[in-house]
Amino acid sequence: MTIDHAARRARLAAALPAHEVPALLVTSPVNVRYLTGLVSSNAAVLVRADGSALLATDNRYIDKTRALDVPAVEAPDVAGRLAAPGVGIEAAAMTVATFRRLEAGLEESGGGRLVPLGPLVEELRAVKDEAELELIRTACALTDQAFADVLPLIAPGLTERALARLLDNRMTELGADKPAFDTIVAAGENGAIPHHAPTDRELRAGDLVTMDFGARYHGYHADMTRTVCLGAPAAWQRDLYDLVRRAQRAGRHALTPGAQAKDVDAAARGLIEAAGHGEHFRHGLGHGVGLEIHEDPFLGPSRTGRLEDRVPITVEPGIYLPERGGVRIEDTLVTREGGPELFTKTTKELLVL
Amino acid sequence: MTIDHAARRARLAAALPAHEVPALLVTSPVNVRYLTGLVSSNAAVLVRADGSALLATDNRYIDKTRALDVPAVEAPDVAGRLAAPGVGIEAAAMTVATFRRLEAGLEESGGGRLVPLGPLVEELRAVKDEAELELIRTACALTDQAFADVLPLIAPGLTERALARLLDNRMTELGADKPAFDTIVAAGENGAIPHHAPTDRELRAGDLVTMDFGARYHGYHADMTRTVCLGAPAAWQRDLYDLVRRAQRAGRHALTPGAQAKDVDAAARGLIEAAGHGEHFRHGLGHGVGLEIHEDPFLGPSRTGRLEDRVPITVEPGIYLPERGGVRIEDTLVTREGGPELFTKTTKELLVL
Repeated sequence: MTIDHAARRARLAAALPAHEVPALLVTSPVNVRYLTGLVSSNAAVLVRADGSALLATDNRYIDKTRALDVPAVEAPDVAGRLAAPGVGIEAAAMTVATFRRLEAGLEESGGGRLVPLGPLVEELRAVKDEAELELIRTACALTDQAFADVLPLIAPGLTERALARLLDNRMTELGADKPAFDTIVAAGENGAIPHHAPTDRELRAGDLVTMDFGARYHGYHADMTRTVCLGAPAAWQRDLYDLVRRAQRAGRHALTPGAQAKDVDAAARGLIEAAGHGEHFRHGLGHGVGLEIHEDPFLGPSRTGRLEDRVPITVEPGIYLPERGGVRIEDTLVTREGGPELFTKTTKELLVL
Repeated sequence: MTIDHAARRARLAAALPAHEVPALLVTSPVNVRYLTGLVSSNAAVLVRADGSALLATDNRYIDKTRALDVPAVEAPDVAGRLAAPGVGIEAAAMTVATFRRLEAGLEESGGGRLVPLGPLVEELRAVKDEAELELIRTACALTDQAFADVLPLIAPGLTERALARLLDNRMTELGADKPAFDTIVAAGENGAIPHHAPTDRELRAGDLVTMDFGARYHGYHADMTRTVCLGAPAAWQRDLYDLVRRAQRAGRHALTPGAQAKDVDAAARGLIEAAGHGEHFRHGLGHGVGLEIHEDPFLGPSRTGRLEDRVPITVEPGIYLPERGGVRIEDTLVTREGGPELFTKTTKELLVL
């Protein structure tokens, strides 16, 4: 499946008249990649309301533009090369320093302002085309396979850091670009910290061990969390796991095109609150994935908006008991008419190692 | 060696009166870390001209603030919590969207503007204290050791990606936080691309192979490049290597406190230009390293400013021959009265494998 960058630019162009700008100066590197295919750390693309576009990048990347379907110019100051009076800019991607420098440049050449706009390209990116879904599906399959391959190696004495490294290495060996984000491994009491960074703490019998990781494949991200138990679980561990598992299932089942983001969150959170653990689940239920690991839409109690069709998203409730430990279960799925398609297929039974 | 965060905040506070602001709202995550010790993805610190400070972060990180020497408040909107009329902001770190949101908030509560300022904290960060230098020294030692350990494994048939993975794994096994940046391995003709991303191309006899990599240790970065030859080098390969090596040495020798950034660049570039390869060396000679992999100061033909004492910096000339290959040699060093201290100690003899 090939990606049709011109069609993406046409969709963006169609959105511009409502914002009363003749063009949008796109400077977010991931948005430039989305609209042109150019992977770089310094590029910008001007997309005009008539659908035409001009790309700018520096001498490191200019050769790569020859294979693209959009004309390109070489310039070290990519945004300065393309800025023009009345043009829209990506307010969430451009720094105040760049904005002031560009406006000062316009001032020198006769005046005119730039128009800060919202996340237009991010809104387009939320709904994926089938070529993108195939890449995310592959990223998730690599993630599943890495987990399956590393599972037999999880044992007392292994450190959190060493386990994280095993997962990271296996994903790249299997063909991932790299890990999608800094892998989390949290054992025992560290499981109470949702964003714990792996330490030299060794896994011990009786630990719940939470692993939150994913592969990046051709720029697209996977995200999965599993919590396993080293040795027979205590009653509280099994109860906690079962509760999170039921909440995660309820969240997944609520994930349909047309559903409100906050209702999906509530479907999972309600079960956790009813069990008296509301205060132990203090993050949102999930987030979109794509060219970024966290992107629109987000699922949370105060999130607005409805889900659309073909939106890859995570569902990841967790319960964190201070100083005791925690459980989180996370899948990456995509919304579909008729029910979500599950991308991360690793079992959600409690694995007792 | 411990880091004195209060002393850093005092130095920043002393710089504020010249900018006529009562306080600086610091929102760059790495600058917040530098000034407080808090490692997070969502925090801000207000540093006042009297040297006092207030930190804000969200519920994920608030527990970590208890060990710090600065008071902290919990707030999901960290910048909004600390913004106040007349306060300076970091124009190179804050997005236009955040700036507009903060100013709208001030407007609602009676008015007042924020004052966009330049990279005040970055300027402080350029000169390192001895505790920081020790961390960079260790990051560089891990980088050297990983290279030494992987060297016997470099042979025809290994892919660029596999070699990059070996280096990355070895660095993390040795104790690195993670690789300091995406490791570059460029074999044969790919060596002509300064920022080549590793592919499945296999190394072959006759290749020059360039490896650009480094370890991150306690947040501090190392950066080293070596080019090796698989099998006996051809005359052009040896000549190219010798030229880059001489240019790199000239750059290192020019690296003294008080030297102008452009003069250091010229010391190396002049040799390359005199040999007729000026057009094949199209990037700057080097960059500062610290909490970021690329930070002030930068060495290049149009860079202004002078080097100070205790500034860790890279010297990395390269020559890139389109479709044939390239050579780059890079060290991380620190400026010292009496001559730079070399942190990356791997030999710069041409290694023939």
